[in-house]
Amino acid sequence: MATPMSRRDLEFLLYEWLDVEALTSRDRFAAHSRDTFDAVLELSADLAMKCFAPANKIGDANEPYIGDDGKVVLPDEVVSGLAEFRKAGLIAASFDEELGGMQLPTVIRQASAVWFQAANAAMSSYNFLTVGNANLLAEYATPEQRDTWVRPLVEGRFSGTMCLSEPQAGSSLADVTTKAEPAGDGTYRITGTKMWISAGDHELTENIVHLVLAKAPGGGPGVKGISLFIVPKFLPDGTRNDIALVGLNHKMGNRATTNCLLNFGDGTFSPDSAPGAVGYLVGEEHRGLSYMFHMMNEARIGVGFLATALGYAGYQASLEYAKVRTQGRPVDQKDPSTKPVPIIEHADVRRMLLAQKSYVEGALAFELYCSVLVDQAATAADAEERARIDLLLEVLTPIAKSWPSQWCLEANSLAIQVLGGYGYTREFDVEQYYRDNRLNPIHEGAHGIHGLDLLGRKVIMQGGAGLALLAETIGATVGRALEVPAAAGYADALQSIVDRLVKVTAHIWSSGDPKLALANATLYLEATGHIVIAWMWLEQLLAADGRSGDFYDGKRAAAQYFFRYELPKTGPQLDLLTALDRTTLDVEPSWF
Amino acid sequence: MATPMSRRDLEFLLYEWLDVEALTSRDRFAAHSRDTFDAVLELSADLAMKCFAPANKIGDANEPYIGDDGKVVLPDEVVSGLAEFRKAGLIAASFDEELGGMQLPTVIRQASAVWFQAANAAMSSYNFLTVGNANLLAEYATPEQRDTWVRPLVEGRFSGTMCLSEPQAGSSLADVTTKAEPAGDGTYRITGTKMWISAGDHELTENIVHLVLAKAPGGGPGVKGISLFIVPKFLPDGTRNDIALVGLNHKMGNRATTNCLLNFGDGTFSPDSAPGAVGYLVGEEHRGLSYMFHMMNEARIGVGFLATALGYAGYQASLEYAKVRTQGRPVDQKDPSTKPVPIIEHADVRRMLLAQKSYVEGALAFELYCSVLVDQAATAADAEERARIDLLLEVLTPIAKSWPSQWCLEANSLAIQVLGGYGYTREFDVEQYYRDNRLNPIHEGAHGIHGLDLLGRKVIMQGGAGLALLAETIGATVGRALEVPAAAGYADALQSIVDRLVKVTAHIWSSGDPKLALANATLYLEATGHIVIAWMWLEQLLAADGRSGDFYDGKRAAAQYFFRYELPKTGPQLDLLTALDRTTLDVEPSWF
Repeated sequence: MATPMSRRDLEFLLYEWLDVEALTSRDRFAAHSRDTFDAVLELSADLAMKCFAPANKIGDANEPYIGDDGKVVLPDEVVSGLAEFRKAGLIAASFDEELGGMQLPTVIRQASAVWFQAANAAMSSYNFLTVGNANLLAEYATPEQRDTWVRPLVEGRFSGTMCLSEPQAGSSLADVTTKAEPAGDGTYRITGTKMWISAGDHELTENIVHLVLAKAPGGGPGVKGISLFIVPKFLPDGTRNDIALVGLNHKMGNRATTNCLLNFGDGTFSPDSAPGAVGYLVGEEHRGLSYMFHMMNEARIGVGFLATALGYAGYQASLEYAKVRTQGRPVDQKDPSTKPVPIIEHADVRRMLLAQKSYVEGALAFELYCSVLVDQAATAADAEERARIDLLLEVLTPIAKSWPSQWCLEANSLAIQVLGGYGYTREFDVEQYYRDNRLNPIHEGAHGIHGLDLLGRKVIMQGGAGLALLAETIGATVGRALEVPAAAGYADALQSIVDRLVKVTAHIWSSGDPKLALANATLYLEATGHIVIAWMWLEQLLAADGRSGDFYDGKRAAAQYFFRYELPKTGPQLDLLTALDRTTLDVEPSWF
Repeated sequence: MATPMSRRDLEFLLYEWLDVEALTSRDRFAAHSRDTFDAVLELSADLAMKCFAPANKIGDANEPYIGDDGKVVLPDEVVSGLAEFRKAGLIAASFDEELGGMQLPTVIRQASAVWFQAANAAMSSYNFLTVGNANLLAEYATPEQRDTWVRPLVEGRFSGTMCLSEPQAGSSLADVTTKAEPAGDGTYRITGTKMWISAGDHELTENIVHLVLAKAPGGGPGVKGISLFIVPKFLPDGTRNDIALVGLNHKMGNRATTNCLLNFGDGTFSPDSAPGAVGYLVGEEHRGLSYMFHMMNEARIGVGFLATALGYAGYQASLEYAKVRTQGRPVDQKDPSTKPVPIIEHADVRRMLLAQKSYVEGALAFELYCSVLVDQAATAADAEERARIDLLLEVLTPIAKSWPSQWCLEANSLAIQVLGGYGYTREFDVEQYYRDNRLNPIHEGAHGIHGLDLLGRKVIMQGGAGLALLAETIGATVGRALEVPAAAGYADALQSIVDRLVKVTAHIWSSGDPKLALANATLYLEATGHIVIAWMWLEQLLAADGRSGDFYDGKRAAAQYFFRYELPKTGPQLDLLTALDRTTLDVEPSWF
């Protein structure tokens, strides 16, 4: 298989553009250097190709199932690949040294993880969830909880999940019905059913630490009543907690990630005692969702990386194919006795490759940019700087989750198209990427939810400061680009569309009617996303300016593609938003 | 499962809009009436739900394989469902009475077939290929060949295939290397390998009639050297012809359609005789491609129907789900103690349903419109009328193939999104539709090929008469619509974009450089496709005008959606085409 990521591109983005080495001047990362960063990235690339990539098709073709003993069975290659990964200690990458971590910047941890995501998306999810889980606990758990749960997570002995959704409530957390009753000893008894729990059960680790949203008595209705609990598969004394695996979902893709329906406290494992799985409160009662949301930005950036990685892998595979597969002749060559040319010579194949390149490299740049913001916020010199970066992250997060989920999936579709009939077969890699990636617009907040989040919360928070900050930040790039002849034209184009976005946003909310304002929130999300990725291409253009060679020419060509073929798509979207179109509001259910 | 098609919509399109009853005034269809049409459609809907729908998931989950005896094994339900279908005699629908056919209009045959395509796309392909094969032979075969091959095909005793692609030549037929040597007795010996042969082997019928493109001695290079042969699995004396099933392709979707690598004349079944499978020439030597292309328009419309049917099935499934699944509350309802609403109440879900509706009903209207043109051409009063209709069909065919392949696949993605996590699981229907449909932009001419066909051949043929005829035909609809207050605004919008398309087309070719002109042919195809579907919505709006009730209000809402949300997407595409953008030409392979 083709290398699913590009070392050269990562190097460009991390060092030539983002200057992540500068992070080592901050106290938190002072023990690190480009050498330690490179060592982690090198190890990641090698391990991903050695332990994850070979299991990718195997895990897809041999879906997990529940064996006769009620335990989840995964293919040997998946089990051993994940064991190798845990042994390498990479789960610990960005955790505090005090917790046994390597205290690497988030951006390096993500640049490491993206190799595993690209090599085997389904396997990478076990790690992704464990890191997210441990990150949350590292922030909010008591010292005792940290010792009991976080350390083994960081060591890779335990793994983690996030249990939010229920069968009747996927996107709507206000309707969570899982209950938590105080047991009188400081612990709680959890009862309820959780759906779509990725990595929800398996035999890969000694224990599984579920983070469960549930309602404890005395909370208000809706999301205000939600508390967060640690509910482990095995209790500290080694006995089995009352969490039953009711079923595995059979998915279109991402098959090697178990996806579970879990019953908490249905008596399967505690027939004699009071009903309920034992849970340990995290932080304070009724504040569960705020803890969860605090970590959700990173989880959402993580999903953006996953979508990006799959898009990238498809791009690399279709590029390799297009360079060697010969077929047809140039349109101005009518003589059929001439030799067929590699299909990369055909303009439409180049269009499909350029589109993929502009999507996946644009997305990767953006996700890394967001990750640097996470590091900058965590190590900000003062509260004001931190608040500023956090605000920018708040605005960017819905886009970081949803843009790659949409466009890197589109890249996967183009990769199939480049391979033609071969692309449609399971003997090649690209169709699996497409199936795996189709999950990403659904989980961690479905696409439409992020539209509401962006337009309904993020751009108007703090009196519109979020959008103003985004516009100002893009404006700074534009300012630099205007000085550069090769970029000035693009800078003008971007600035004028940013100006328009700001005006359109104000216009949308001037109606005073949230229903009308939010009727086309998804279009707003998509338009803003394209503007942000155009900005990322302008940034890359500047980083490549003055440098010659194929790699930099490629960056320039992809930037040109994005500005000419993609950014103009926002025009009709902004027109519709300006019109405050009511089509979707006025249609009646009975008319369908 | 939801009914995958809508009887009401078919009735509207066939009778209230297209007035297909008028076809019964033509000699060829004089024996028919609305009653006979309805009987066939009723039978089709019932049979599709009874014999095809229940086998859809079974065929997907139990892919065909080659048994120990070398024979293809398909699930029992697929085998018995297809047997029921053949018994019902529907293969004969549109064939001449003289051949044992029912001599129904093509549009009725397609409206019948679309039920089977929607209920089970993979199973429908066996019939689709048999009809296409027999259609071609009915036109070009000798009387003896008609008796030997066409009659059993029409009866459903034999089935048919089209063997064009080879492993090294998918889209590029000029590079076909399969050889045909005259055997001296009027027959030929065929040697070569054919790839991606749908329905290429199975035990469903007594015999399989392969139509094979091969090069006979004396032909020119490229496509001019191609002849067409009947190469049956079993010879008329019952002996096995030398056609070996080398392997089955393992596909992302459409799994119940066998997709084969076939060796012709490799000696597997004729170790002692001269090498080569026995083939019978169709028509004249070296004219094979013209015969094939004559039938390809219908095959391409057939693929358009297939894509449409899958899109339609997904729309119906997600609509049913959206009406019953409750989750969340209106954006202006903040009280979490109120009951969750059906998700169809959310604007973004309505947007996804309206988008699907506008794609699938627009596509169905268009495919039926093209089918009526086929009937009108076949029964035209004179050569001039026939030529005129054929020219319009030539221009429309690339769009009839590619537009639904792109947008009804997008509809399937939206159906998944409406169902959320459930949509991503194989327990529900929509993910299979998405996988099945992803084939359609690939086979029968990949997407990019149709762009070249439309811009490079069709719109410039006969001195540009094709595009002028399309513009004139759309103009006639616009003329009628301008008289109707509810449609006049849309008519204006459509006319101005058609005018622009005509200008842009002339501008593109004014460069005199085919490479430059065709660099963005795919965008041209996509823009023209959206214009044509907008025209179809204007037509439906006129057919619904003055009629009240939910059904007609739904048509008006979908038309409004298409004109406001979709048609404007052509603006940036036409801008790019006007700019004669060179991005895809100038990028070098080494830059990727």
